[in-house]
Amino acid sequence: MMLLRLNMRVALAALCAGALLIMLYWSRCGDLARRPIGSALSNSLVERSNDDFECVINGEYSVACRRDHDEVYLPFSFIRKYFEVYGKISSTDGVEKFEWSHSYSKIYHPKKKYDPRGTFTTFENYNVEVRDRVKCISGIDGVPVSTQWEPRGFFYPTQIAQFGLAHYSKNLTEPEPRVRIIDDGDKNLASWTVSKDATFTREYDNSLKANVVRFATTDQVGSQVWCKVNISQDFVLSLDLLLKPNSSMTVVLQNKDKKETVYLHYVTSMQLIHAQDEHIYYGIGVEYKWRRLTRDLIIDMQKGWALLDRPKRKSPRNKFRIWSVHLSGSGRAGGLRVSGSEHMAHFFAAARWLVAQQRARGGWPVPARRRVAPSVPDLRPGWHSAMSQGHGISVLARAYHRSGEAAYLRAARRALALLDVPGAAGGVKAMWMDRYVWYEEYPTKPPLFVLNGFIYTLLGLYDLHVIEGDNSASLAKKMFDDGMLSLKTLLPIFDTGSGSFYDLRHFTLGVSPNIARWDYHATHVNQLYLLAGLDPDPILINTAKRWEGYMQGKRAAHN
Amino acid sequence: MMLLRLNMRVALAALCAGALLIMLYWSRCGDLARRPIGSALSNSLVERSNDDFECVINGEYSVACRRDHDEVYLPFSFIRKYFEVYGKISSTDGVEKFEWSHSYSKIYHPKKKYDPRGTFTTFENYNVEVRDRVKCISGIDGVPVSTQWEPRGFFYPTQIAQFGLAHYSKNLTEPEPRVRIIDDGDKNLASWTVSKDATFTREYDNSLKANVVRFATTDQVGSQVWCKVNISQDFVLSLDLLLKPNSSMTVVLQNKDKKETVYLHYVTSMQLIHAQDEHIYYGIGVEYKWRRLTRDLIIDMQKGWALLDRPKRKSPRNKFRIWSVHLSGSGRAGGLRVSGSEHMAHFFAAARWLVAQQRARGGWPVPARRRVAPSVPDLRPGWHSAMSQGHGISVLARAYHRSGEAAYLRAARRALALLDVPGAAGGVKAMWMDRYVWYEEYPTKPPLFVLNGFIYTLLGLYDLHVIEGDNSASLAKKMFDDGMLSLKTLLPIFDTGSGSFYDLRHFTLGVSPNIARWDYHATHVNQLYLLAGLDPDPILINTAKRWEGYMQGKRAAHN
Repeated sequence: MMLLRLNMRVALAALCAGALLIMLYWSRCGDLARRPIGSALSNSLVERSNDDFECVINGEYSVACRRDHDEVYLPFSFIRKYFEVYGKISSTDGVEKFEWSHSYSKIYHPKKKYDPRGTFTTFENYNVEVRDRVKCISGIDGVPVSTQWEPRGFFYPTQIAQFGLAHYSKNLTEPEPRVRIIDDGDKNLASWTVSKDATFTREYDNSLKANVVRFATTDQVGSQVWCKVNISQDFVLSLDLLLKPNSSMTVVLQNKDKKETVYLHYVTSMQLIHAQDEHIYYGIGVEYKWRRLTRDLIIDMQKGWALLDRPKRKSPRNKFRIWSVHLSGSGRAGGLRVSGSEHMAHFFAAARWLVAQQRARGGWPVPARRRVAPSVPDLRPGWHSAMSQGHGISVLARAYHRSGEAAYLRAARRALALLDVPGAAGGVKAMWMDRYVWYEEYPTKPPLFVLNGFIYTLLGLYDLHVIEGDNSASLAKKMFDDGMLSLKTLLPIFDTGSGSFYDLRHFTLGVSPNIARWDYHATHVNQLYLLAGLDPDPILINTAKRWEGYMQGKRAAHN
Repeated sequence: MMLLRLNMRVALAALCAGALLIMLYWSRCGDLARRPIGSALSNSLVERSNDDFECVINGEYSVACRRDHDEVYLPFSFIRKYFEVYGKISSTDGVEKFEWSHSYSKIYHPKKKYDPRGTFTTFENYNVEVRDRVKCISGIDGVPVSTQWEPRGFFYPTQIAQFGLAHYSKNLTEPEPRVRIIDDGDKNLASWTVSKDATFTREYDNSLKANVVRFATTDQVGSQVWCKVNISQDFVLSLDLLLKPNSSMTVVLQNKDKKETVYLHYVTSMQLIHAQDEHIYYGIGVEYKWRRLTRDLIIDMQKGWALLDRPKRKSPRNKFRIWSVHLSGSGRAGGLRVSGSEHMAHFFAAARWLVAQQRARGGWPVPARRRVAPSVPDLRPGWHSAMSQGHGISVLARAYHRSGEAAYLRAARRALALLDVPGAAGGVKAMWMDRYVWYEEYPTKPPLFVLNGFIYTLLGLYDLHVIEGDNSASLAKKMFDDGMLSLKTLLPIFDTGSGSFYDLRHFTLGVSPNIARWDYHATHVNQLYLLAGLDPDPILINTAKRWEGYMQGKRAAHN
C-alpha cells in the first residue's frame, strides 16, 4: 500500500513538467505510528524497522521514532496530530522536499485605505454560490438559498449580502468580461427555429424600450421555438422574459467530450429547484411581468446535480457548452446574451432582495433555528444577526452609491435600528459589563461576543457613514465609534498568545474557550489590517502584526 | 565531540545500577539542525548524512530531517525549540528510550479540604532559603534577606512569609527530627575546654529559668572556651545567647573527606553577612539581651560561599560535620542543641518579624524598586503587595493558632486594611471595569491583574476568616467573598486554550500577552484545585482540570 503510493508519486512527478505538490496521507500514517506504551514495536500492520526508537509521549503512549547519535527524530504523522500543523512533500525539478506550514490560511495586506465605494474587504476572493451550503440561486430573486441550518433551504440575509458583496468586489477587480449578444432585437438577431404550429414575431416593447420576440407554442409534441447558441467558456446567460402561465425557457448544455446533455428549465412556478435525470427546473415566479433573468448556468447545473447526489464535477466550465435556448408556452423575450460574468446583476439582485425583504424594524430576520453552543438556548426562527444587518448595510450603501436610488440609502439607515436593541428584545445588542456595546452576530443569552461578525458590522456602519457623506453627527458614525471603542478595549481578550478566540463564550458561559480555526483567525487579521488603516490606535496594527506572526508559529512570550 | 558525549553516556549507564536519566544537550543540536533555506546540507560543522531530507519551515528556513517512504522524521532539536517542549533519553535496565514532556511541572492533587491550621497549599515542597535570590538568613531576625530586585539585599515580606509558611508546612509533613542535646545545663552537659586566662562557670538564669554557662575570654591569642561537638548529618544548631559587645560564638565545620575547615562566626554586630577565606560572619545584633539563635549551618556556609563566588557544592550535608562550638568575649549561653530541623523556630522567626515590622497602615512595605513591565512606571521603594499582605496574614493566622498569642491575630487583622486601599493611594486594590475587586501583587498603574498573587491573597483572607472562628460578618470573610466573585468571573480570561496567562497586561497595557511559564501555570492549577475544595462553583474544578490537561499537550477545541 505504501509502496503503491510511492510509485504513484514517482509516476506523477515524472509526468509533470513544473512543480508538483503531492499531499501525503498523513492521517493513516499517524494511526500507525501511535501505539500504547509497552506494546511491542513489531506489529504486523507496521512496516518494522530496526531503526525504530521508542518515544514515550507524556508518559501516555509511545511513538516509533528514529535516532542518530544525540538526535532523536519524530515522525511528522505524530507531530501533525499533536500540534495540528500541516505539511506536504513538494517536488521541484525532481528534487523533493518537505514543506511545513503552521497554518493553512493567507493574509491579504491592504494596498490602500479601505473605501466603502471599493471592494468589500477581501471578498473578491469569495465565491458564495459554489459553497455546498448554498442550495441554489433562487430563480425568482437571483439570490442564494442556504441550507446551513435548515436542509429545506432558507434565505439567509448574511449569505445573500455576502453574495452581493463578493460580486460587487469581483466587478472591480476582475477584467471586463466577454459579452456575446445572442439576440438584442436590433443589430444582433438570432436565427430562431419555429415549428409549424408555433408562432414567432418581433415587436417593440414600450416598457423595455427595445425590440423583443413574441412566441407561442402549442401542447403538441415537437411544438417549439428555439435557437442554437453554441458557446463555450462563458456561461452566464441573461435575458428579459415575460411569460404566461405554464411557459418556460430552457437552456441545453452539452458535454463536449461525453455527448452528455443537460436541460436547465426556467419555469413559471414558485418551486425553488427540482431535478430529475438530466432535467433541472428552477421556478422563476408566476407573476405576469417582465423580469430579467441572469443565470450562471454551470452553477445551476451543479446545484441540480447536488440534489441528485451526484458528485461535484471538476472544471465543468471547460467541458460543457451552451448548445441552445428554447422557449415554450407563450410570452415575450429579449436582450438575450451570454457573458463571462454579470457581477453587477448579481449584486443588484442581492440589494433588491434586501430592500424588498426588510421588515418594519429595519431587520432581516433569519427564518432558521440556530443552535449556537451546547449550553445556550437556540436562536429561534426570526432571530436577527448584527452581521446580517452590517453586511446588508454594506450592500445597500454600495447600491446607493452605484445607482443613486434613495430607496437603498433609506433601507440602509433603517437597518441601524436593531443594533441598538438588546438581544432579549429581538435586537442584536449586547453589553460587556454594562459598559461596552457589542453587535452580536448571534444574539444569544448570555451573549457570545463573536469577533469577526462584530467587525463586519462595524464595516457596515463605516460604509454607511462614508456613503452618507462625512456627517459626523450621523447615527452610523456614532454606532461605529462606540463599537470601535469596544473593539479596541476588548480585542486583547481575544488573544490566545498563539492564535485568537472566535468568541468569548469561555467568559460568558464558563466553558472551554472556542479557539478560532486558522481561516477565521486569518479573517480577524485581515479585518484588523483594514481597520488599522482607518484608526491610528496602535492596538489595531500591533495586534494584526502579532496575530499574523502566530500563523507562522510565533508565540507570545512567557515569563 | 558528539562521540565523546555518547561514550560518557555509555560509561555513566554502565556505572549505574538502577535507572539513569541522561539529559541530552539539545540546544547545540538545535543550532546545527537549523539552517537558512537553500544552504547546502553538507556543512563541515554538521555530521553529514545521506539520509538528510530537507524540510522547509513556513517558507522561512530549512531543517535537516529524515525520510522513510511516506513518513518524514523531524529532529527533536527543532521541535523542542519550535514548540518549547521537553525531552530526554532515559535508560532503564540498559534499554534506552526517549521521554517527551509537554511541561516540566507537577500538579499536587489535594487529598483533603484545605485547612488554615494545616499546610499552606504545597509549600512543604518549598525550600526558600536555598534559592539563589536569598542572600542569607539574617542573624538578627532569623528570616531570609532577598536580592531579587536589589543586590545589596532587603527584607521582602513575601519571601519572609513564604519562608515561614514552608517551615510551618514541613513541620507538619516531615517526620519528627532527631534532636541531640549538647548542653542543657541539666542532664546533658558538654565538656568545655577552658584556656588558662579564660573563665567558665555554670549558673541559674532567672529569665530563662534554666542553668546556663557564663564565660569570659581575654584578648590574648589562645584564650578560649570551647566544646567538641562532632556531629554529622544534622546541622541545625540552636542555643540561647546573651553576649556583651565584641563577643561571638563560632561553629567550626569540617569536611570529612578533604580536611577543609569552615568557621561560622556569629558576632555582636549589625552587619548582615561577611565572608573572607574560610571565615563567614553573621551579625546577631548589638543589644545586650538574651536571644535564641537557630541556624542551619549548611545554609549559612553556602551563603557565605556564594558571597565569595564559590560554586554551590552538591550535598554538603553528607560531607561535613559540626566539629566544635567556641565562645569568645564574655556572656552567657545555654540550651545548646543540634537538630535535623527546627521548622517551628524558623516559622516563628517569620511571624515575629511580621509583627515587629508591620507599619501603622497594617502593611509591610517593600523597600526595593520593582520594574514590573516595560511600559509601566516602576513601583517605588515602599510599595505594598497584596501577596505580602495575604502571605503575612497566613503566617500570622497560623502563629496565633499555634501560640494563642493575641498579638498575631491583631497583626493579621490590621493587615487587611491595605487590601481596601487603591494602588494609587499606596494600597493594593485594583478594580476590573469598576466592578470586580482585585488584590494586586504588584499595584502598578495601570493594574496588571496577576493571577497567582491574587489567589494567594485570597488564601490569606480565608485563613484569617477560619482562624478567627466562623464569623460570617468578619472583614476577612467579606474580602474573601468579593475576591472569589472576581476570580470566578475573570478566571476564563486567563485561559489561553493551551495554558494560562500570568497576568492581564495585554488587556490593561495593550501589549503582547504574558503567558505563564509552566511552573506558574502549575501554581494556578494547584491553587484552583485547592479553591475547588472550598467553593462548589464548577468553574473552579472545571478550569483546574482543563488547565491540568494543557500540561499534557491537550488544547481547547477550535471551531
